[in-house]
Amino acid sequence: MLLAALREEVLHANREISRRGLAPHTFGNVSGIDRTGAEPLLVIKPSGVDYATMTAADLVVTNLDGKIVEGSLRPSSDLATHTLLYREFPQIGGVVHTHSEFATSWAQAGRAIPCLGTTHADYFHGPVPVTAALSAQEVEEDYVGNTGAVIVRHFRELGLDPIAVPGVLVAGHAPFTWGKTATAAMETADVLEYIARLAFRSILLGASEAGIPAHVSEHHYQRKHGPKASYGQA
Amino acid sequence: MLLAALREEVLHANREISRRGLAPHTFGNVSGIDRTGAEPLLVIKPSGVDYATMTAADLVVTNLDGKIVEGSLRPSSDLATHTLLYREFPQIGGVVHTHSEFATSWAQAGRAIPCLGTTHADYFHGPVPVTAALSAQEVEEDYVGNTGAVIVRHFRELGLDPIAVPGVLVAGHAPFTWGKTATAAMETADVLEYIARLAFRSILLGASEAGIPAHVSEHHYQRKHGPKASYGQA
Amino acid sequence: MLLAALREEVLHANREISRRGLAPHTFGNVSGIDRTGAEPLLVIKPSGVDYATMTAADLVVTNLDGKIVEGSLRPSSDLATHTLLYREFPQIGGVVHTHSEFATSWAQAGRAIPCLGTTHADYFHGPVPVTAALSAQEVEEDYVGNTGAVIVRHFRELGLDPIAVPGVLVAGHAPFTWGKTATAAMETADVLEYIARLAFRSILLGASEAGIPAHVSEHHYQRKHGPKASYGQA
Amino acid sequence: MLLAALREEVLHANREISRRGLAPHTFGNVSGIDRTGAEPLLVIKPSGVDYATMTAADLVVTNLDGKIVEGSLRPSSDLATHTLLYREFPQIGGVVHTHSEFATSWAQAGRAIPCLGTTHADYFHGPVPVTAALSAQEVEEDYVGNTGAVIVRHFRELGLDPIAVPGVLVAGHAPFTWGKTATAAMETADVLEYIARLAFRSILLGASEAGIPAHVSEHHYQRKHGPKASYGQA
Repeated sequence: MLLAALREEVLHANREISRRGLAPHTFGNVSGIDRTGAEPLLVIKPSGVDYATMTAADLVVTNLDGKIVEGSLRPSSDLATHTLLYREFPQIGGVVHTHSEFATSWAQAGRAIPCLGTTHADYFHGPVPVTAALSAQEVEEDYVGNTGAVIVRHFRELGLDPIAVPGVLVAGHAPFTWGKTATAAMETADVLEYIARLAFRSILLGASEAGIPAHVSEHHYQRKHGPKASYGQA
Repeated sequence: MLLAALREEVLHANREISRRGLAPHTFGNVSGIDRTGAEPLLVIKPSGVDYATMTAADLVVTNLDGKIVEGSLRPSSDLATHTLLYREFPQIGGVVHTHSEFATSWAQAGRAIPCLGTTHADYFHGPVPVTAALSAQEVEEDYVGNTGAVIVRHFRELGLDPIAVPGVLVAGHAPFTWGKTATAAMETADVLEYIARLAFRSILLGASEAGIPAHVSEHHYQRKHGPKASYGQA
Repeated sequence: MLLAALREEVLHANREISRRGLAPHTFGNVSGIDRTGAEPLLVIKPSGVDYATMTAADLVVTNLDGKIVEGSLRPSSDLATHTLLYREFPQIGGVVHTHSEFATSWAQAGRAIPCLGTTHADYFHGPVPVTAALSAQEVEEDYVGNTGAVIVRHFRELGLDPIAVPGVLVAGHAPFTWGKTATAAMETADVLEYIARLAFRSILLGASEAGIPAHVSEHHYQRKHGPKASYGQA
Repeated sequence: MLLAALREEVLHANREISRRGLAPHTFGNVSGIDRTGAEPLLVIKPSGVDYATMTAADLVVTNLDGKIVEGSLRPSSDLATHTLLYREFPQIGGVVHTHSEFATSWAQAGRAIPCLGTTHADYFHGPVPVTAALSAQEVEEDYVGNTGAVIVRHFRELGLDPIAVPGVLVAGHAPFTWGKTATAAMETADVLEYIARLAFRSILLGASEAGIPAHVSEHHYQRKHGPKASYGQA
């Protein structure tokens, strides 16, 4: 079986998004990529399979064109979004898609989540962006692939760094997050949901869309991610 | 005992609406129908009985006029709504009624749930409709039966297909869902509650009542239900 | 030990308001009354004692003037509200006070909960009323007793029947419910919290304060409580 | 090992803020101080360590200048806020920082929590105050220490007593609470979250920012904390 360790990590991360309540029913999927071989290979959840009974052997291995390399089940229907993100963001090693409640509510409202506090600033450099909706032509042509394309186009237009901004809301749909590993992307999906909960309440209480002063958000982001990071034991 | 397998399925679905938090106290009931015999027979929850202690033998079997065919307990007080839905929607095999929190809140507000995202579009073709309130005469004459009648009338007036729109909100009351089986109707009741939660947050964040573009919602609905369905392993 | 059976019931109801999340920390208390003896005696929770470790022997027995008849612990600091309600509402056998989240939020807003649906109409005949705040003199003179007095005065002024309207919100404070037994009052406290949750969401979605048509609410109330009650197995 | 009993208490309080859902991920820390020795010593959570696996030996002992006296792990990144609060508020023996959901939402909105009911009045004498945001210079110079400084300055300007007002919201960040012990500070952190939940709902229902009459809030506060306190068994 190819990529045994990566399969275990991706299996665990898929189970975690379910266990943590981020993916009710089977609304979610996680993938991870191994870029060390001759051809990069990714491991992804099969489509519509229950998180509880899924095994490492049920996961599907594909190349970056979505061609199945190993696996007897059909891969997640969102596969083409994952492959496009891996092709366009070579820094990332894991992708997570959920329909978590509050992040999805923001996505459905078509609103970026402003950076209203240090919980947010510790993980996202600036607002959590929201894409445009796909055009009729983009849906017709290749819905899933173009979901990835609108994400990448939005990041390019705004000049965003996918490491500093490790996720996005797809308008009228739901969030995607990513990171250096599938585990990191899963943790970010969980934090994003928490940020979305906080921001929802704060906005209803009248918080300004402008968010916290840049000198505070910058300090918090650098504290965890900058060259002089001072958080944790590392 | 008549209809042993159907009794087990209906028992399980009744327990699930309780276990999943959709029917606090005894606010909910599930029925299923067997249309294969000389006369269609339905199996329904008894009235006011606790979900935890209920057994398959406690369930009540009636015909489509609500006449008890087997069972010593009084059937759910909502029986006449169930029988009317089975008579008028011959495609359906199971009916679920809950007072789940967010779906009921929309019903109490008398608002249809607009299709604001793909989570919704995967299950309901267009908004989740809301009926009118019953008139004083309808209440006086036959409250429970007329609850079914206003649902059916609303679907006829809007030209809705009960398979594509597998549920409704009864204004000032609560949701009903249905499906090919009692199990399917129960799953839809659960998804409806999730859709209602998402839409509640999105509307408070300023989402447009118009919802997502038709080309997106149509694509998602067809992906799961159309002749070229591509989701899951089937 | 006096009133062994009533002690067990009151102990259980106190534990239930904690277990069901209606009384976080020790914000809540339940009492029950025995009116069959020469002098009516009530059993009430001791003050500030943890629900988990409380025993039937810890409960305090008092008369309707609040004089301790049996028990070594200090009774709930809300005792005088309970005794006043028992004196003024001779139909009731149990009283529950909680700080449950949504009912308390309505009380803090000083708003009655309008009857927006059948879940509400099944349990409360009309809105859940809200008292006025106590005056400075009422607080100074006898805060706890006057909390009962403002409840009773409000019911008298509105001509409300405490059996048909089995609870109230005290403005700026929290709910009280009652019933024929301590168990019934506890169940009503739980349903009141659910009604308060539903109404909160519905009001934010734009529900009219006027609530559902009287012919519907009347039908539902009578269905469960009128002489021709048709709900349950009784 | 220094301060064995205090270590156990601080360990327990750190676990409790996690277990009670007040500190998702590792967003929170508790410290306690021993002021009986020649030099006051405080015990604090190490930075970024999981609550579940943390032991008493992992905790870090420092003096009031933040110098490590015992411990091999790096102390919480919020240490300098804790030490400043202990230096400036000599009455307190424990400090808790969380990112609990509703309290943080108020902090992000930059709003003090008005005293809208007796649940609040039992624990906080007046509103839960909110600080100003730190200036760019304060962030640059000493972010963590100045977080403590803005708290203390705010209390001085408003003439607040840190025993009567045992906590604060730091604007754009999250709450801090304190008390005579680490355990008391942890309980207050939990109650503060509940107060914040209640006030959020009440404000959305239209509660006046002015809050309950002073004669009611004063009565409740004195009932639990004044010289004639009548609550509990003490």
